Amino acid sequence: MIRLSFDIELKYEVAEQPADFVFNIHPARTPWQSIVNEVLVIEPPADSVLEDDALDNRYLRMRAGPGPVAVRYGATVDLDHYRESPGRLDEVSIAAIPPQVLPFIYPSRYCESDRLRRFAGHEFGHLRPGYWRVQAIHDWVKNRTVFTPGASNSSSSAMDTLVEQAGVCRDFAHLMITLCRAVNIPARFVSGIDYGAAPDLGPPDFHAYVETFLGDRWYLFDPTGISAPMGLVRIGTGRDAADVSLATIFGAVKAQPPRIVISALDDAAGGFHLPRHSVQALSTTVAESSGDAAAA
Amino acid sequence: MIRLSFDIELKYEVAEQPADFVFNIHPARTPWQSIVNEVLVIEPPADSVLEDDALDNRYLRMRAGPGPVAVRYGATVDLDHYRESPGRLDEVSIAAIPPQVLPFIYPSRYCESDRLRRFAGHEFGHLRPGYWRVQAIHDWVKNRTVFTPGASNSSSSAMDTLVEQAGVCRDFAHLMITLCRAVNIPARFVSGIDYGAAPDLGPPDFHAYVETFLGDRWYLFDPTGISAPMGLVRIGTGRDAADVSLATIFGAVKAQPPRIVISALDDAAGGFHLPRHSVQALSTTVAESSGDAAAA
Amino acid sequence: MIRLSFDIELKYEVAEQPADFVFNIHPARTPWQSIVNEVLVIEPPADSVLEDDALDNRYLRMRAGPGPVAVRYGATVDLDHYRESPGRLDEVSIAAIPPQVLPFIYPSRYCESDRLRRFAGHEFGHLRPGYWRVQAIHDWVKNRTVFTPGASNSSSSAMDTLVEQAGVCRDFAHLMITLCRAVNIPARFVSGIDYGAAPDLGPPDFHAYVETFLGDRWYLFDPTGISAPMGLVRIGTGRDAADVSLATIFGAVKAQPPRIVISALDDAAGGFHLPRHSVQALSTTVAESSGDAAAA
Amino acid sequence: MIRLSFDIELKYEVAEQPADFVFNIHPARTPWQSIVNEVLVIEPPADSVLEDDALDNRYLRMRAGPGPVAVRYGATVDLDHYRESPGRLDEVSIAAIPPQVLPFIYPSRYCESDRLRRFAGHEFGHLRPGYWRVQAIHDWVKNRTVFTPGASNSSSSAMDTLVEQAGVCRDFAHLMITLCRAVNIPARFVSGIDYGAAPDLGPPDFHAYVETFLGDRWYLFDPTGISAPMGLVRIGTGRDAADVSLATIFGAVKAQPPRIVISALDDAAGGFHLPRHSVQALSTTVAESSGDAAAA
Repeated sequence: MIRLSFDIELKYEVAEQPADFVFNIHPARTPWQSIVNEVLVIEPPADSVLEDDALDNRYLRMRAGPGPVAVRYGATVDLDHYRESPGRLDEVSIAAIPPQVLPFIYPSRYCESDRLRRFAGHEFGHLRPGYWRVQAIHDWVKNRTVFTPGASNSSSSAMDTLVEQAGVCRDFAHLMITLCRAVNIPARFVSGIDYGAAPDLGPPDFHAYVETFLGDRWYLFDPTGISAPMGLVRIGTGRDAADVSLATIFGAVKAQPPRIVISALDDAAGGFHLPRHSVQALSTTVAESSGDAAAA
Repeated sequence: MIRLSFDIELKYEVAEQPADFVFNIHPARTPWQSIVNEVLVIEPPADSVLEDDALDNRYLRMRAGPGPVAVRYGATVDLDHYRESPGRLDEVSIAAIPPQVLPFIYPSRYCESDRLRRFAGHEFGHLRPGYWRVQAIHDWVKNRTVFTPGASNSSSSAMDTLVEQAGVCRDFAHLMITLCRAVNIPARFVSGIDYGAAPDLGPPDFHAYVETFLGDRWYLFDPTGISAPMGLVRIGTGRDAADVSLATIFGAVKAQPPRIVISALDDAAGGFHLPRHSVQALSTTVAESSGDAAAA
Repeated sequence: MIRLSFDIELKYEVAEQPADFVFNIHPARTPWQSIVNEVLVIEPPADSVLEDDALDNRYLRMRAGPGPVAVRYGATVDLDHYRESPGRLDEVSIAAIPPQVLPFIYPSRYCESDRLRRFAGHEFGHLRPGYWRVQAIHDWVKNRTVFTPGASNSSSSAMDTLVEQAGVCRDFAHLMITLCRAVNIPARFVSGIDYGAAPDLGPPDFHAYVETFLGDRWYLFDPTGISAPMGLVRIGTGRDAADVSLATIFGAVKAQPPRIVISALDDAAGGFHLPRHSVQALSTTVAESSGDAAAA
Repeated sequence: MIRLSFDIELKYEVAEQPADFVFNIHPARTPWQSIVNEVLVIEPPADSVLEDDALDNRYLRMRAGPGPVAVRYGATVDLDHYRESPGRLDEVSIAAIPPQVLPFIYPSRYCESDRLRRFAGHEFGHLRPGYWRVQAIHDWVKNRTVFTPGASNSSSSAMDTLVEQAGVCRDFAHLMITLCRAVNIPARFVSGIDYGAAPDLGPPDFHAYVETFLGDRWYLFDPTGISAPMGLVRIGTGRDAADVSLATIFGAVKAQPPRIVISALDDAAGGFHLPRHSVQALSTTVAESSGDAAAA
């Protein structure tokens, strides 16, 4: 079992009119990722604070300002991954994809899989279907793309990343998702926080990675290779970054860079070990439909 | 009440290997659109035919071929629209948008609303929020865009249509949706069949139009102006055309153009009138979450 | 020596107002491609017919209509290619590129070489500079792209073709040009007519191919592989298709498909042989500046 | 007469291998813009320094490094603009456009005028041709676009700027050029240095603006409105920014921000006045072909 504790601090300056915020910074609740405790502080207290816990993603909405606004959220999360031997994981035929998973083979804002079908077929069409084909796509993206802050922007799509071969974590994720979908493998975008990234990449930050649907559930892949997938706290899942923006802001607002700290419990006696690389495939969720995960 | 009867014939020639098909040609079931009867014939009988009726969209999946495949679907549908006076319909504040509607203010594959925020603000930001602002967006799209088969293709997005000012019904719909989202009005794509299009536009065909969320439900808009919205049979709804393709095909398949016939019942004594233009806002659904509509 | 004779017939219907036309259908004059004879007939006679022979490209401008307009142009052209052994052809260092060739390492409308520098470096950066590196780019484009009429349109760029891996001759040419420029090899677009294309590709048509600057002159490459480069009549050269449109039309005009016939003289006694594949590099021009070629 | 003196300092750090540089920082020579004096210092002295003065643009090429490289260029330039009353300036018909001007109605890398023909026609097609129509395009771009450093990047094109309505001077220029070409008015990109920009925009910097061909010569427009066009020193002209990059670098090089100072002579007795806004149309060049301007 992995136990991760993190704190997020988001600071804003709202201009003359109150602004609306939609946050997606609460970790998801699944049978394999549970919230031990959490605390949310909004200063000054905001109007119409609304926490939606019923869906896969936990949204916090509020109206705040004018003036300074700070959102501090902290949580301790236990991760007890479902593990499977990669060689046992098959791709799912079109006919057998669960209805709530079907949308994840379609193109989305930043993942133009419709345009990459021939390209993906050329590169990966001849490989044997299954976990290792997904791993081959993961490796291809990792090897062909250079982690380059500033090379992309909020409009950059998988097609841009394919051509320009540079970007940040969300670009790596979009490209891997797109290539998977282009060969009919359901794939989705995950926002999260990662434990254990190399310190030379700067302070801890939000992260973006990938889940693909194999066998009967969603499995984790991180094409940036920044850290061990076992140390990824899942926050939001969606078709791509458009769905799980950490903060969507409506109004004239200046934001400071987020501050994040994260730590892992190393307590062998208590059953907790640090995240480490694993040869097994890892999952934190089945094909939940809206509301199921929370109820599980 | 409107009663529409239609028949769809789709013909394919599947090459050497069996192909997978995902169809979305069954009309949605809502409290305001009910199926009087329907019939589906697949020739020759296909493998693994699966009809998902639990979701908002009714998907038909099958594996068929090799060889010729014909899908014939017919239905009679009763439409008893929810009607409202436009002047009473307000936009919904961010804080009050139902969770299942929230995704429809985000950008999607063909609707890059993130890139059009300033443009939309410039054109529509000063208008009073509400139904009439949506109508102004509808009018702008209708007046600025020329219906031009061949001017766009399956990759064309709202941004292309904005710049090139030409396209077909799906392009009109994508542009209107995008401009609505860019001013924070939830909007979605609807596939359907329309009764009463001008005969000079060719034989009856599938159509694409728009629903925006106002007050407590989704209201119909058709920026092509091809026919009276009252004669639109709703099939699928989604973020954009990527979600509600009438037929998504996996495999080497040649398709013939679809054949569609549609008729409306004119029986005043029985309470049925022909579709006609109306000054009222029309809706066939509330903010259903997955599965709710069917259960209602 | 190669002697090719061809006739082009272009037919238009000009609507109510006279329209302006800019044609680029006359073969270029170079020391290695000479015009034996040519004839131009415009029916009915047009206003302000202007033939610019002073530049590399020979433009014909006219104002015509309303009503039917026919342009018939025929020529006999002798091609006595400059030939070189590929192994002796080096790339030219940035410092040594002639000034009038320098623009051909920059990006252009359909050739976004600025965006493909990393991609091209990854694929071709490690190869030894020279003719064989250009040949490797040629082979890569030929092998990765499927000749598919209808897959692209007049807006399609090299980046689209790279991603979608399908197109027609102009798309093949744009992609090869772009990859060359991205590794600093000057490359340009050539419009022409080809002798000897496989009959199953339809009747003779205009063609698009590539010239790259190696050593001290421009050498021919045709990444479609449709016919022997020796049978290509050079019409226009430019940065990409935007510069050498066969017909640019200003006004409301309906065009019929062009009709083209071409033949080659087979007269060994007279010194004329049919175009054939050659292991030598072929060129029809040095780094002419504007006006030089005609004067040569 | 205007007399402007400026100094440019460009500093680089070249990595392990020598790098090639192509600079376009020397002011153009025209009958209306003359160089009083100029000085170029390269430290340490570079290899293969080549100054091309024969073309419209004056290119400096050199190979330098490894290690630090500094290029300092200073010049004093006299501007004696050709001036014309706007009301007397007509657009030029397609048939009468000089051959060397013709390329400037075609689309280019950052100016997709082919895609904006309908848009431009809708906005400007009904206006009376001539200087005032160009001024209307200038005003439209100025009013619709917000000067926003960081909103665009080196890949941004006119279509992006049209949609996103934000950018820097090169984006303003590209959009104005594109809209002009889309209604068949030749337009080109000019790089330069401007005197008199508002100090709150930061220190003096390179600038980008527009020339359109009216009557028998090129006239200046600056859609950013940052300063009086009379204070613009013309450096390079081309189809768009791809042609007149101030520094194109081939190799691994780190650049510091350029440092620029500029001053204007105010000496009424000597015949020199400060740049000021003028109601007259200003030009510094006719339709030169390559080499003509320098010879004039």
